[in-house]
Amino acid sequence: MVKFSEPDLDRTFAALADPTRRALLARLVSQDGASVSELAEPFPVSLPAILKHLNVLSDAGLITRQKTGRTVTCRLNAAPMADAMAWLDHYQQFWSAQLDRLAHFVEDDDLS
Amino acid sequence: MVKFSEPDLDRTFAALADPTRRALLARLVSQDGASVSELAEPFPVSLPAILKHLNVLSDAGLITRQKTGRTVTCRLNAAPMADAMAWLDHYQQFWSAQLDRLAHFVEDDDLS
Repeated sequence: MVKFSEPDLDRTFAALADPTRRALLARLVSQDGASVSELAEPFPVSLPAILKHLNVLSDAGLITRQKTGRTVTCRLNAAPMADAMAWLDHYQQFWSAQLDRLAHFVEDDDLS
Repeated sequence: MVKFSEPDLDRTFAALADPTRRALLARLVSQDGASVSELAEPFPVSLPAILKHLNVLSDAGLITRQKTGRTVTCRLNAAPMADAMAWLDHYQQFWSAQLDRLAHFVEDDDLS
């Protein structure tokens, strides 16, 4: 039987699987505390679509939102990414081995 | 304008967002070259469901499949995970800073 219950990891990876959501997180790196309308500004999608993406990021714990008057500001919360990175780290030895084999193949090809 | 086209990264993160798919990859670490029926054995889901998960992993380039007679064997291909790890690595400084602040908070709390 295998381990099945890591819903936090499911939510983190699912949240990161969309380019708009990754770009929203990237914008928060340079503009932490930006308002929703500031965040939405460069995206060629509707504000409701951005709000849905922000909900997904918030549900995954990757952003926090704060309402002050009529303005909602967002802050990056990178902590859930640590578990995703730790999961991927278990596989690093395998892709390193694959890249080594590829490098040897290219070297052998250069010599022939 | 923001960068939108990283479909490989979308597929990698989406493939990793499911616990059965992560568990299938984990089984391939210890049983590389296992047949589909061997892989499916410990999972409490139907074989067609496992085949769908294997299709998602294959589309993301995370496994390769080979047919010999009536047997399909699977191999782990961790290489696409390297890009996912590189993406997450950009955020490491932010979660490290958050964990540091949390550690200070706990220390301060211990002293009070």
